[in-house]
Amino acid sequence: MKNLQDYLDSHELSEMHPASIVKILKTLSDDELTQAIKLVPKDLLGDVALALPDRLFDDVVESLSVDELSHAVRELESDDQAAFMLELGEVDVDKASEVFESLHEDDQEEIIKLHNYDEDEAGSHMQFELFTAFKDEIVQDVIKRFARLRKENEVENVQNLFITNKDNKLEYAVGLDDLLIFDFSKTVIENIEASDESFEPIKAIDTQDIKEVVHIFEEFDLSVLAIVNAYGVLLGRITSDDMYDIINEHATEQMYHLAGLDDEAEEDDEILPAGKKRATWLAFNLITAIAASLVIGLFSTTLESMVALAILMPIVASMGGNAGTQSLTVVVRQLALGDISQGDAMRIIKKEVIISLINGILFAIIIGIIAAVWFDKGMLGVVIGLSMIINLFMAGFFGASVPLFLKKMDIDPAIGSTVILTTVTDVVGFFSFLGLATYILL
Amino acid sequence: MKNLQDYLDSHELSEMHPASIVKILKTLSDDELTQAIKLVPKDLLGDVALALPDRLFDDVVESLSVDELSHAVRELESDDQAAFMLELGEVDVDKASEVFESLHEDDQEEIIKLHNYDEDEAGSHMQFELFTAFKDEIVQDVIKRFARLRKENEVENVQNLFITNKDNKLEYAVGLDDLLIFDFSKTVIENIEASDESFEPIKAIDTQDIKEVVHIFEEFDLSVLAIVNAYGVLLGRITSDDMYDIINEHATEQMYHLAGLDDEAEEDDEILPAGKKRATWLAFNLITAIAASLVIGLFSTTLESMVALAILMPIVASMGGNAGTQSLTVVVRQLALGDISQGDAMRIIKKEVIISLINGILFAIIIGIIAAVWFDKGMLGVVIGLSMIINLFMAGFFGASVPLFLKKMDIDPAIGSTVILTTVTDVVGFFSFLGLATYILL
Repeated sequence: MKNLQDYLDSHELSEMHPASIVKILKTLSDDELTQAIKLVPKDLLGDVALALPDRLFDDVVESLSVDELSHAVRELESDDQAAFMLELGEVDVDKASEVFESLHEDDQEEIIKLHNYDEDEAGSHMQFELFTAFKDEIVQDVIKRFARLRKENEVENVQNLFITNKDNKLEYAVGLDDLLIFDFSKTVIENIEASDESFEPIKAIDTQDIKEVVHIFEEFDLSVLAIVNAYGVLLGRITSDDMYDIINEHATEQMYHLAGLDDEAEEDDEILPAGKKRATWLAFNLITAIAASLVIGLFSTTLESMVALAILMPIVASMGGNAGTQSLTVVVRQLALGDISQGDAMRIIKKEVIISLINGILFAIIIGIIAAVWFDKGMLGVVIGLSMIINLFMAGFFGASVPLFLKKMDIDPAIGSTVILTTVTDVVGFFSFLGLATYILL
Repeated sequence: MKNLQDYLDSHELSEMHPASIVKILKTLSDDELTQAIKLVPKDLLGDVALALPDRLFDDVVESLSVDELSHAVRELESDDQAAFMLELGEVDVDKASEVFESLHEDDQEEIIKLHNYDEDEAGSHMQFELFTAFKDEIVQDVIKRFARLRKENEVENVQNLFITNKDNKLEYAVGLDDLLIFDFSKTVIENIEASDESFEPIKAIDTQDIKEVVHIFEEFDLSVLAIVNAYGVLLGRITSDDMYDIINEHATEQMYHLAGLDDEAEEDDEILPAGKKRATWLAFNLITAIAASLVIGLFSTTLESMVALAILMPIVASMGGNAGTQSLTVVVRQLALGDISQGDAMRIIKKEVIISLINGILFAIIIGIIAAVWFDKGMLGVVIGLSMIINLFMAGFFGASVPLFLKKMDIDPAIGSTVILTTVTDVVGFFSFLGLATYILL
């Protein structure tokens, strides 16, 4: 506890940003953490807990009472409330339901609404806290209302005033930088009509795929986006800090999928769920490897008569796997970033095949010479060279076309593509090498 | 050109957001594009060109005159000017230098300043356009100045008023949502002192690593960050839209490094640079594969006496490679996201080893039974099972410890780790399997 005392002596927690408190907490041992968490100001506790890694969040919420948790949740904005309750439910269902019961009815309703959205839907990431006005309100009055909302901590981090009609349909979005130079004595709509700027709101629908929303943020350089329902009624907003998390999560998901990992199972920091999901992937890979072995088995007579083939054969398969993974990774990533579209398919496949083929020829020459010298047998060099060219050609072709095909079939190109690709490069690698050896050398 | 005409009939380009224009341009053929680009309003041309994929940017700038390009650049904000000139220089150095000469001296200076930063430094991503004031200015006057700046298009997308002292050192940052509810008749500092809020600015230093800046944005949920020099003098700002690009780029970089790709070479859409970088990686992989073959060669007598070993041996190496890649990917990604720190090393290695070991035992049993039945030889099953356990244990251990070690040595853990790992899993896989077979079966 000495460390902790030092921190308290040198820091005034109540004046700190939650992120700064988190930084200190992360350096503490588990025991210190559960004691230190009691010292965090109550109105920051929710933000602090949410910013901790999952493992520490679990420790923290277990050490807090229902009352303390309830207070922490009440201080959060709606999207964070929903996220907090979701995580809490995963740690301790009973505690979560007690905390939920203790919340204000409005908060409960909002949490339920957000939890009803699928994780992939824009709605699940929005917050309900908004700064809105009608177009015939005097700007001065709108700003007075805003001052009150700010004082009551009802809205934070506001960048836009959303103008809705009487049915709550979104009509305009006014950046605060525009609002600031409006004539405060006039109505909103008088100001809008007097300005050269366009106040047409950029918006997304609550059920829209969050991946599309990310692209809207990126393309339009937004820091906030209005979320409406299918009828155009303003529901909430998504802000730039959500984007950072979502962009990171999507990239992690993709990287993990390519390596045969499940991002949600890995997040947990528990061994069993992660291990199970990894085993599923390894099982697929085992089938692939056995298929490759069956191909090798076809040539057992050839192998028996020339042990050099057994020694060299993994080289062709390995180079094919690596070259294929290169093509695959580029295509999967560029598809995700929207840098290549379906219309580009032929161009992309052609490019990948050419690169693979050039490298195939290059490494065919190198390994051909090495094999010929190593085993003092010129034709062995020809065999391994030819099979290298064939396998790298196939690696480039399948590395590019498998993800493009999966995408066309509306399947996540990161998930299944690696196992399909390595099946191809293993089977083609062994078959071409041993087949050519049988034909040419025996 | 029929398509193009259709677009023009149905869209009013001058009223559109650059992102919407880009969406249309992307659907056009190359010929149509170079004609359509002439129809883009001059003040949007720079933004539109920058938002196009590199390949199309090249087509566009080649079809434009120096005058047109110069006009396009002048309309951009400083960070975009710097980015545009950099890209233009890559396409056509002479044209770039003519355009540069045609720019206003201030613009030239700013571009040079930004180009002087390394890409990894925060400074290279900032823009100089700021909304600043001194603390003893009356708020009303500050807003009047802001209205003028906005009218002249000098500042866009403003979210903060930065308060500096006479030496231009940053003292406070006032969000526009706070500014809006200030008493306009008083000075800035009077308002700040009357408020409960903290106006202490969150800032980064221009030479700071951009990866640290990303973490600041993520942790503090920022949409804009002030950039100061080492003496605290305000230089510029970085905004959330830069973050989206940077987060995406870093994820791409990492994914590409893991697969043996160079992100910059791949961006170019040219075959030669990408192919060369890929060949370097494949050359490393070839050395690894040859090392594995040398290991196999140690056991040529064993292989000659039992062809089943040649048929089965790729299975052990392949499973090890896959299990190792799983551990490696998790550790590399979580290091990048800041979810694990150096202090966690033992916990992470332990976790990865346990998962790999459990899966090793599981797949040892499965492949053991398959091998024993396939070749009707019980002890062959024991041999492959044991070597599976050994190799998956090593895969978990090296998959976790290699990136942790590289990180500790201050080397990017994504770059070298895959090749080190597969060397281990190939060599251990073949050595343990063939070694055990020699010892047990012969």
